Amino acid sequence: MALVKRLVADDLAAVNSLILERLQSEVTLIPELARHLIAAGGKRVRPTLTLLAARLCGYEGDRHIALATSVEFIHTATLLHDDVVDESDLRRGRSTANSLWGNKAPVLVGDFLFSRAFQLMVGDGNIKVLDILANASAVIAEGEVAQLLTAGDVQTSEAAYHDVIRAKTAALFQAACRIGAVVADRPAAEEEALATFGEELGIAFQLVDDALDYSAREALLGKTIGDDFREGKASLPVLLAYGKGSPKERAFWERVIGEPAGQQEGDLAEAQRLLARHGTLDATLARAREAGQRARSALEMFERSAWRDALEEIVDFSVARAY
Amino acid sequence: MALVKRLVADDLAAVNSLILERLQSEVTLIPELARHLIAAGGKRVRPTLTLLAARLCGYEGDRHIALATSVEFIHTATLLHDDVVDESDLRRGRSTANSLWGNKAPVLVGDFLFSRAFQLMVGDGNIKVLDILANASAVIAEGEVAQLLTAGDVQTSEAAYHDVIRAKTAALFQAACRIGAVVADRPAAEEEALATFGEELGIAFQLVDDALDYSAREALLGKTIGDDFREGKASLPVLLAYGKGSPKERAFWERVIGEPAGQQEGDLAEAQRLLARHGTLDATLARAREAGQRARSALEMFERSAWRDALEEIVDFSVARAY
Repeated sequence: MALVKRLVADDLAAVNSLILERLQSEVTLIPELARHLIAAGGKRVRPTLTLLAARLCGYEGDRHIALATSVEFIHTATLLHDDVVDESDLRRGRSTANSLWGNKAPVLVGDFLFSRAFQLMVGDGNIKVLDILANASAVIAEGEVAQLLTAGDVQTSEAAYHDVIRAKTAALFQAACRIGAVVADRPAAEEEALATFGEELGIAFQLVDDALDYSAREALLGKTIGDDFREGKASLPVLLAYGKGSPKERAFWERVIGEPAGQQEGDLAEAQRLLARHGTLDATLARAREAGQRARSALEMFERSAWRDALEEIVDFSVARAY
Repeated sequence: MALVKRLVADDLAAVNSLILERLQSEVTLIPELARHLIAAGGKRVRPTLTLLAARLCGYEGDRHIALATSVEFIHTATLLHDDVVDESDLRRGRSTANSLWGNKAPVLVGDFLFSRAFQLMVGDGNIKVLDILANASAVIAEGEVAQLLTAGDVQTSEAAYHDVIRAKTAALFQAACRIGAVVADRPAAEEEALATFGEELGIAFQLVDDALDYSAREALLGKTIGDDFREGKASLPVLLAYGKGSPKERAFWERVIGEPAGQQEGDLAEAQRLLARHGTLDATLARAREAGQRARSALEMFERSAWRDALEEIVDFSVARAY
């Protein structure tokens, strides 16, 4: 991502300052709790998209800084709310970010970040931007609830899976890119092209994430795998393996995904063997590449520029993470 | 509340329709889960304030309907996020609204309602209204976190207690009233007067709530009492009793509020006896009456009208709930 890094360095430094500034609160637990998630400097994929999209559209002002920050705050609020743990998780001894502060603090700090995102957008003052981000927020929440409902259900259709990732992940990528065109006051066609780019990139990103959660290579690199498995998520690699599975294999999936609390030692390894047998990680990654290709195609209406190259670099990097 | 009911009947019916309409989602769990909280028809105190404040200011359009709905959605999102249960609560066998759907669903449905609130405001399109409600949302979240931090601490200062209720409760009452003046495009003095009215009413409302949680009369009426006690909330009746308590009484408060998980049978009754001995429920209610009086005074700049009478009726009702 050398090109991306170079092109957004200054803008991203401004975003990082603004994040630290707007994290402040007299209630010091708020920055303390949020900092480990947001200030440590994640990949900042989503705000980077807003920055690059605005520059691609020839924007030369600085409104995109606050909007990129707003997008990152929405993303971080979502992460905090994902930390919330259910009774069933507690029974399995799983208590991660919430172990120190309890379950309620991440929820309330997430609400604070969401409000900060909202304040940043209102500060921008453009109703169209507000409309885009308000709608994206509602779609994300719907996607998160829909994901909760498909959890444990290995008979979830591929269409339902796609609806979930389109809502919970791709909607924010899409909005992040779209507002870049809006601040630059570009015609609808460019706005739509950037929206399509963001949406397809978001889908590719999530498909790769879902594959990596079962990836042997990730395990070799010492990264945590199996989070989705332990939560009983009906992710595409599992759905495809279930579809191709023998009756005995289907019974396995129904047990481990349908009742994740009852998972036993060796179940994750068995799941990985079944995914490999049916090639469903490869199939998932192939779809990610297709979505990545659709994202690249959406950029074709823009003249070649360093900004367009950088957006393509993000696509390639997102898909290549898997190899 | 006969006058209030009569005056807002039509507007409130419009708010109720809009609530039902905007609760809809293809993800049907969302309306299902939200309905028991919002559609059943609560008291609708906050949206009623927006409706009355707008009418008091001579507003004759219908923008106040969407804004009142937005206020109610913010309130309901907060309630849902308050349902989130901690590990320590689970240990005490406390799992209320979350028992059916787990801990995560109320969080995500709350996020959805918050997004819907945001969409309604954006639909209105007035940046000043957006600014008021965005700021109120941030202050509410800060207040909720601050309350979490004072929980269990009987040495919380009265000033800190007031900061908490001002933020977690009064900020939304204040914003609900202020936007009534804003939609009517009234001068700053009227806007400030309505903001003061709302803030003082919110403080009175919360003080009474905190007293009722220990009220013998409420217990006689068969209402649930002791929720704050079981959560170890540092509410004013407790803080005042701690301040006036003997060393033995202080030790009692430190045990039951400081470590609510260890509460025993008879502790709530003992707490009620101590509050009665030191007259701290009466003292709390006296402060509520003072705040109510400040709220009434703030309305004096408005000419007498049925709308002003109705707002005063809400003050009287809120304070009189306690008798």
